[in-house]
Amino acid sequence: MNKRKILNDPVYGFITLPDELIFELINHSCFQRLTRIRQLGLTYLVYPGALHTRFNHAIGAMHLMGEAIEILKQKGTEISPNEKRAALAAILLHDIGHGPFSHALEHSLIHNVSHETISLKLMELLNNELGGQLDEAISIFKNQHPKKFLHQLVSSQLDVDRLDYLSRDSFFTGVSEGVIGTERILKMMTIVNDDLAVEEKGIYSVEKFIIARRLMYWQVYYHKTVVAAEQMLISILRRAHKLALDGVQVFAPPALTYFLENEIDETRLDAETLRMFMSIDDSDIISAIKVWQQHPDKVLSTLSVGLVNRRLFRAELSNIPFAPEMVAELHHSVAKSLGLSIEEAAYYVGVGEIQNNSYTPGIDKILISFRGGIGKDITEASDQFSQNMISKSIVKHFLAWPKGV
Amino acid sequence: MNKRKILNDPVYGFITLPDELIFELINHSCFQRLTRIRQLGLTYLVYPGALHTRFNHAIGAMHLMGEAIEILKQKGTEISPNEKRAALAAILLHDIGHGPFSHALEHSLIHNVSHETISLKLMELLNNELGGQLDEAISIFKNQHPKKFLHQLVSSQLDVDRLDYLSRDSFFTGVSEGVIGTERILKMMTIVNDDLAVEEKGIYSVEKFIIARRLMYWQVYYHKTVVAAEQMLISILRRAHKLALDGVQVFAPPALTYFLENEIDETRLDAETLRMFMSIDDSDIISAIKVWQQHPDKVLSTLSVGLVNRRLFRAELSNIPFAPEMVAELHHSVAKSLGLSIEEAAYYVGVGEIQNNSYTPGIDKILISFRGGIGKDITEASDQFSQNMISKSIVKHFLAWPKGV
Amino acid sequence: MNKRKILNDPVYGFITLPDELIFELINHSCFQRLTRIRQLGLTYLVYPGALHTRFNHAIGAMHLMGEAIEILKQKGTEISPNEKRAALAAILLHDIGHGPFSHALEHSLIHNVSHETISLKLMELLNNELGGQLDEAISIFKNQHPKKFLHQLVSSQLDVDRLDYLSRDSFFTGVSEGVIGTERILKMMTIVNDDLAVEEKGIYSVEKFIIARRLMYWQVYYHKTVVAAEQMLISILRRAHKLALDGVQVFAPPALTYFLENEIDETRLDAETLRMFMSIDDSDIISAIKVWQQHPDKVLSTLSVGLVNRRLFRAELSNIPFAPEMVAELHHSVAKSLGLSIEEAAYYVGVGEIQNNSYTPGIDKILISFRGGIGKDITEASDQFSQNMISKSIVKHFLAWPKGV
Amino acid sequence: MNKRKILNDPVYGFITLPDELIFELINHSCFQRLTRIRQLGLTYLVYPGALHTRFNHAIGAMHLMGEAIEILKQKGTEISPNEKRAALAAILLHDIGHGPFSHALEHSLIHNVSHETISLKLMELLNNELGGQLDEAISIFKNQHPKKFLHQLVSSQLDVDRLDYLSRDSFFTGVSEGVIGTERILKMMTIVNDDLAVEEKGIYSVEKFIIARRLMYWQVYYHKTVVAAEQMLISILRRAHKLALDGVQVFAPPALTYFLENEIDETRLDAETLRMFMSIDDSDIISAIKVWQQHPDKVLSTLSVGLVNRRLFRAELSNIPFAPEMVAELHHSVAKSLGLSIEEAAYYVGVGEIQNNSYTPGIDKILISFRGGIGKDITEASDQFSQNMISKSIVKHFLAWPKGV
Repeated sequence: MNKRKILNDPVYGFITLPDELIFELINHSCFQRLTRIRQLGLTYLVYPGALHTRFNHAIGAMHLMGEAIEILKQKGTEISPNEKRAALAAILLHDIGHGPFSHALEHSLIHNVSHETISLKLMELLNNELGGQLDEAISIFKNQHPKKFLHQLVSSQLDVDRLDYLSRDSFFTGVSEGVIGTERILKMMTIVNDDLAVEEKGIYSVEKFIIARRLMYWQVYYHKTVVAAEQMLISILRRAHKLALDGVQVFAPPALTYFLENEIDETRLDAETLRMFMSIDDSDIISAIKVWQQHPDKVLSTLSVGLVNRRLFRAELSNIPFAPEMVAELHHSVAKSLGLSIEEAAYYVGVGEIQNNSYTPGIDKILISFRGGIGKDITEASDQFSQNMISKSIVKHFLAWPKGV
Repeated sequence: MNKRKILNDPVYGFITLPDELIFELINHSCFQRLTRIRQLGLTYLVYPGALHTRFNHAIGAMHLMGEAIEILKQKGTEISPNEKRAALAAILLHDIGHGPFSHALEHSLIHNVSHETISLKLMELLNNELGGQLDEAISIFKNQHPKKFLHQLVSSQLDVDRLDYLSRDSFFTGVSEGVIGTERILKMMTIVNDDLAVEEKGIYSVEKFIIARRLMYWQVYYHKTVVAAEQMLISILRRAHKLALDGVQVFAPPALTYFLENEIDETRLDAETLRMFMSIDDSDIISAIKVWQQHPDKVLSTLSVGLVNRRLFRAELSNIPFAPEMVAELHHSVAKSLGLSIEEAAYYVGVGEIQNNSYTPGIDKILISFRGGIGKDITEASDQFSQNMISKSIVKHFLAWPKGV
Repeated sequence: MNKRKILNDPVYGFITLPDELIFELINHSCFQRLTRIRQLGLTYLVYPGALHTRFNHAIGAMHLMGEAIEILKQKGTEISPNEKRAALAAILLHDIGHGPFSHALEHSLIHNVSHETISLKLMELLNNELGGQLDEAISIFKNQHPKKFLHQLVSSQLDVDRLDYLSRDSFFTGVSEGVIGTERILKMMTIVNDDLAVEEKGIYSVEKFIIARRLMYWQVYYHKTVVAAEQMLISILRRAHKLALDGVQVFAPPALTYFLENEIDETRLDAETLRMFMSIDDSDIISAIKVWQQHPDKVLSTLSVGLVNRRLFRAELSNIPFAPEMVAELHHSVAKSLGLSIEEAAYYVGVGEIQNNSYTPGIDKILISFRGGIGKDITEASDQFSQNMISKSIVKHFLAWPKGV
Repeated sequence: MNKRKILNDPVYGFITLPDELIFELINHSCFQRLTRIRQLGLTYLVYPGALHTRFNHAIGAMHLMGEAIEILKQKGTEISPNEKRAALAAILLHDIGHGPFSHALEHSLIHNVSHETISLKLMELLNNELGGQLDEAISIFKNQHPKKFLHQLVSSQLDVDRLDYLSRDSFFTGVSEGVIGTERILKMMTIVNDDLAVEEKGIYSVEKFIIARRLMYWQVYYHKTVVAAEQMLISILRRAHKLALDGVQVFAPPALTYFLENEIDETRLDAETLRMFMSIDDSDIISAIKVWQQHPDKVLSTLSVGLVNRRLFRAELSNIPFAPEMVAELHHSVAKSLGLSIEEAAYYVGVGEIQNNSYTPGIDKILISFRGGIGKDITEASDQFSQNMISKSIVKHFLAWPKGV
């Protein structure tokens, strides 16, 4: 273990792996697989530096978890070495159920299965392998641990997951406004009645964190060209899936073939499917799509050529839904322009909505701690962030279609 | 000029001085004086790195002005070389009227004279010296230039002044949350009907800029220990002033003596006073206060000892005013505890208010440009920043007094 | 073009694409392919952030080229718009001939073909497509342009290629010591008798650049675990190649299959081969190796399992060659320990040498310019970098073998 | 203490004050005084951001000491809490004897007294005040502590003093090449036979550190305009001193007057002199020189005008000494040009030498640790840094004189 117990991270510098169990988890093939799955999918087509992986993020979040726990301990919160190890393991594995291009996959090949479900299944598999060493980590992950702040550090509106991904995505995309005061927020963390909270004087950093996250959503995660690229990927995978189900030969590595040739949903999440799922990563999808550029099916080949060579759909965002007649009209134009049937043309038109809440009051709330051990919701504590303002859910509708049509 | 036409700036890297006039202005004694006046006064007592000067800020703002103008020109806005030079000169000189510890000085030795008034007077003096070369710069500064966006770049709610000071103050204090997307905001600048605006897709960066500025106000500029230190400085200068007016000997360099021994207000802003004003800087105040530690007047000496050795007042902030009875009570306690008269004790109690608007709709508004050349106020354009939320003026009341009383 | 004429780069911020030709080149499928080829191959197995691609590097180097040319122009060197465009195109395309895991590929599937040869062939293909628009770029690349400093900017010991890759590799690996004073070196660039040079006062930055490059070589590029991983990849590809040549079925996408089933060397660099070469990238190699984990051939499968799951060889570096008897002994141990023939065991032992010159005097020398237009070699100009010291070639020998043997 | 136990540092982020004693030392007036003494004296006239103080540096070095000790403890070196506290105190106070513009002062007002001598005297005074709590710190400072590596961390060729000042000076000047891999060097620190050493794999970082320090010397500390400004300051102080000794009235605050009117050398380092010394800082020198601009003595006034308004001497550096005849000639030219006596003209000509060793083999050597607990001098361990190369002492001669003469 000595050989690799320090990792170089471009965001935080050196990260020390604290522990034999953590080291073992990181070296497990399930986790190593995350080195081949990009955190932001196709975003690199718009922000070319966004190549970091779910591995990088998981390690970074674990690092922040370690810092948060040390700070809470210094302030008098009791956290045992076992609890610390469990919290580190829980955050390390929190995203282990992600597949390649997660969102696109869920809209094409794998239906109604959230990555959280798969994460939990994999944690349980790992736990068996490790003779129960992950029991406490799993109880934290499932929010069944008595110290509920440990779960809140893993998953809440101010968890180390968000703290890491905002910093990291900002770093790799070059969108400097995503920078948040991670160090200050961590230093201000405290516990109020078993709930994670931030000290009063950290309130501005929390406000800034909320705004930074909002910015990253609209500027990066929901950038309209990213949405367009993802729509193309969904269409490609759906088409390949349909062809494979119809018995047409579609080149792919065996594990990807499994998902193309079968209808997988939550009812089929057996060991075999999980094993297959663990075998696919970004490289399989990219490698296959490149082959599909020569496929006899025109829909599959033209969409693949477009994505591989970055001739992406054009996308528009709107505050109101696009009229069905407008979408139908677009189907016709595409069909006519490309010589396709209406059914085929539908693969060339993406329509849907994206949605983001800056802040959601309620169970996961961000708590600000005041003198006397009183905790208040950030929207109540803030001079300026009124609840009805900041908790407004923003929904945007998108429409994507081939340029030139 | 060749020898120094490039400056090393820790925030932006190399800054090229574009022009002989700019070079001459920077080398003028009026401007070199800014190398001896800190941008953030006593803030270094709380954020020890905050040692940067008004010189650093003025040069940085000039650099951003140059970038902004080049970007606007690339987008088709006509800006002549003379206009560019004038805008650079205007921003370079916009703060030239600042004295040492500006705010404290205005509350003690110099009454009812804003630094803008002095800046303008000095620009006019310089303009005479330079044979009218600053005519256009002055018209921009006074908002009399036909291209009003040039004035808006110098002074509005999204001017290069703010863009520089937020970045710079953030850099030197180490408050990373003050980081704003300066480069992105500059790249998105455009002109709508002669008004400075930001392109629609820059809207999130503008929101973030507003929140970052708000954070810097409450976390840095109005940090309660900074407020307390400033109250001490005001009391020290007032006391020295009173003693000097009463004929008591108070050590100071001649120029500072001039302000201690005379009552200066806007009616006495003659050439002699201006010359004297130009002669004082941070070093005179600090050097004198150190001497005053041994002054026979107990008020002057104890306050000076406190400030020099960083035994600062304690301060509290409150959303509601402190009751006059409470303040009177405090006067009594101080008088009793330190063996002073009530009148003398008043120097040990600072009371007042601080106030900040995140955003003020109206003449200086931040404009977002939409397709079709339409400009909308940011509060109208934003999905989430409603006008009544963000333009709410936040007022806080402070009370400062000696620790241990 | 407007839509994407600005790129976000995490290293330099915004990069403006200056030109329609440059935009067209970047959007060409040959160039887009570089978005799927990592700059540092398997280095991410040691430095997990090292995921940046040859696309990122080529864009960054082009950006520096633009800055260098503007600086030289400001100092009076005549460079026409066409020459600038040609230099930008030349640096953009200088690495276009790289395949996935270039070095490993050259040691397994493609013999005696340098990436420079392929780069030039591809430039000529592109030039045909573009009706000769790359004539001047190619003359710069081939050092046939009369302004030889343009070639030196593309390829010499202080070219924008090195300036970019050192900064970029340092950024993504998190090895902060690789940071060089790119901006200062660029600002100090000048021309002495048609040769690129650095002004005298930039000499310390040049020394630092040389040392930083040396550090990056030994700390990153030749990190022994990186060497070990690469040895595994070479063995895997050689084994798959051998099996395919022997008629054994080896899963791969068609383009990779082409290289597995054929012996390709410089004599077979025809259009078909080039087309196939352009079709393979990192994803094909990674995706195939994952499949090979289940291959019936024990050598192929065990090595693939090792690389995929980061159970890497152990490597040692030495200043003297490893004795042949020691290597032979190791072959025996591996054969015995894994139940293989000696011939098969050879795939598990990597032996070879790595070599780096900090500086090579001669044709590509780094020139320092002194008053009076005199240029001196850096080793002559430096107070401390004597030629025999810095130009010493460092050779290290490595031996890599499975852990536990 | 709670109120200020965290400091914001722009270089390292948050710095936690570990301890009541450390907190007390930092709040002592002797130490607070360092907030008014710039680390780099007049360097801000060339690098305008170089405004950081000896306070910033001392705090930063203490922070690195804390990190170094934790790392050594993790590797098994025994360091007791008391030893840690002593080492922190020793580094915190290592520069406490510096006066304002230290080097210039030593060449004008205070003869033959090194700042180390004063530092030690002040530590002993503080130790008395604190009832012996600094005994162990002083033994570390004086290299009398049995764990000699603690002294080496305070003062050797790879001490935390250098690690901090290189990073910090680089940060504030904006000279990015000064960046060193502090974090990596700290992580690689180890102990070999009670000597501080760096693990073998950190050797490249050490090489880079040596080169970075060399660069900072010639590019920043010995920048010729910095040398010129310092020569002016020395001449000003010498002239004021001479005038004061001659009975001429020279304005200054009392403590500075003490040094102007008395001849202070090591034999007069009594309590009174120390008290006076503790009372002067940058502000007194700057404030007085501004007043001296109007002094009747032409030499004092013209030199003061020059320094205050940044009309600095011109300086030249040379590898060989300037010929005495040339210097004499310059004296004549200055005398003639400014209408002065030869004796007066001498104040306008600075001549001397500056000298730097990249590395000095011997007692303070940098040790690299190899397997088996063997330590080798860096020049022996390095492939490329031969001893005769890197330990060559570089001496340059300077000549400074008024521009235009």
